[in-house]
Amino acid sequence: MNNLPGEVLLEDESLRDGLQSEKRLFSVEEKLHLIQGMEACGVRRIQVGSFVHPKWVPQMANTDEVFARLQRSEGVTYTALVLNQRGVKRAVSAKVPHLSMSISASETHNQKNTNRSMAQAMDHIREMIEIARAENIRIRAGIIASLGCAFEGRIPKERVCEIAELYASLGVEEINLADSAGLANPRWVYEVVMAVREVVGERAGISLHLHDTRGLGLANMIAGLQAGVTTFDASLGGLGGCPYIPGATGNIATEDAAYMLSEMGIESGIDWSRLGKLTLEMEALLDRRLPGRIAHMP
Amino acid sequence: MNNLPGEVLLEDESLRDGLQSEKRLFSVEEKLHLIQGMEACGVRRIQVGSFVHPKWVPQMANTDEVFARLQRSEGVTYTALVLNQRGVKRAVSAKVPHLSMSISASETHNQKNTNRSMAQAMDHIREMIEIARAENIRIRAGIIASLGCAFEGRIPKERVCEIAELYASLGVEEINLADSAGLANPRWVYEVVMAVREVVGERAGISLHLHDTRGLGLANMIAGLQAGVTTFDASLGGLGGCPYIPGATGNIATEDAAYMLSEMGIESGIDWSRLGKLTLEMEALLDRRLPGRIAHMP
Repeated sequence: MNNLPGEVLLEDESLRDGLQSEKRLFSVEEKLHLIQGMEACGVRRIQVGSFVHPKWVPQMANTDEVFARLQRSEGVTYTALVLNQRGVKRAVSAKVPHLSMSISASETHNQKNTNRSMAQAMDHIREMIEIARAENIRIRAGIIASLGCAFEGRIPKERVCEIAELYASLGVEEINLADSAGLANPRWVYEVVMAVREVVGERAGISLHLHDTRGLGLANMIAGLQAGVTTFDASLGGLGGCPYIPGATGNIATEDAAYMLSEMGIESGIDWSRLGKLTLEMEALLDRRLPGRIAHMP
Repeated sequence: MNNLPGEVLLEDESLRDGLQSEKRLFSVEEKLHLIQGMEACGVRRIQVGSFVHPKWVPQMANTDEVFARLQRSEGVTYTALVLNQRGVKRAVSAKVPHLSMSISASETHNQKNTNRSMAQAMDHIREMIEIARAENIRIRAGIIASLGCAFEGRIPKERVCEIAELYASLGVEEINLADSAGLANPRWVYEVVMAVREVVGERAGISLHLHDTRGLGLANMIAGLQAGVTTFDASLGGLGGCPYIPGATGNIATEDAAYMLSEMGIESGIDWSRLGKLTLEMEALLDRRLPGRIAHMP
């Protein structure tokens, strides 16, 4: 528990990973209101949405308009997720300064999700990264299932490192290790991060995208902190995951993560107590309770 | 994340800390059924109840009878909580081989809970320990509020260490650091455990009683493991805390803790998947969902 960082950046993904599987569609005004609320609480990186086909993810259809009407503040990074070259081009038009894109470390998952082999997925993302870099967009490249796969179980660290090496060689700013299925455990998080760090060295930062599906989200975050990670994804109240499974959760809750960091003397810049009130607003909009904890403390 | 232990003991406190604030009274038969169920899943230490005045805690009124009718298995430790000499004597009559007793590290908490000063509380527990040791009862002595107090905030480590030194000098087997208010954080858990270990050395073991009130239970457990703790209290589904506050929780959930350990390659002897089914039985008895996570995974 030594060598903990002094400062941590939380990327709030409520508006993308959080809302993408919700039935309720959020208007541009609602999204702008939530972004403004997060900024006021000190959130410094906000994933505003994704540039995907509106037929597949109608919740994200107004992402271009949200960016167009966004009052951009100094010191806050507005980012988005893209899945293909068309998405990158839309992001360029929307003047998005920072993008997330990713491939899966699981061959099965790549095939099922995108109908591509790992090799094809790597070629595909290489082209996306090159287009985005040519536009001076900062890039973080993700490795889905890098900490566990629902189909293949534990993915060998070597395969994760191979993708990380590709990313580093392409000049991405940050490599995101994602546990969207919530299958990670603290020991494995530590080992995978250390292995990736060994490969990429100082060429790129490492961030973690942790889901709290099995309740290990914050425990995994502790392991990440100890492995030197200083950027973590989170969402208001732990929004995300399938809303029809009771107790299923998305990311770690932004306000809970900020609370834990604050108690540990690690600066995140976030007023977790105030952010908890924004989570209560989100719950009112969704008309259900979210799994996050601190927002409900008396 | 190195130096993790190979083996961990989980003490299940469902029947004491879990049930003590429930409205529903559990019969002797129900308690025996739950104990049997836990044993079948590999739980090796079970807190069966407490010897307190039935007027104050009617849920525990049948503790003597539960012990009388208990089929004791080899390799399982049956334990109970006592608050005073009268309780110790009842435990002796009930042939309880292992007892928990405790005082608070918070002066305010001692006063409010027992109307005793810290010095009086220390004298009081000294007498209890001496009586129990004379009967060859194994003792674990707890320090309530050692990781944070709802009244006084953070308690100085020195005060916690002073009580730990008393305990060690009296020959207790294990010192339990309790965070019943759920105020601990991983960094502080690590620091307090290391400070207590420094003082007591090999004279006594250290265990942790963590509540998941603010969602940091398992993260705090990770810190405890790294500080060398190998015994943790837990309860089925995280039962405990005030049942009238939605989302308020008791201990870390036994099956969730066992799941995390298992994923990390640490042996607890517990079949977490099967234990999750017992949690579902407990939920049916209480007619409400408990906060534990893994029992509800599809």
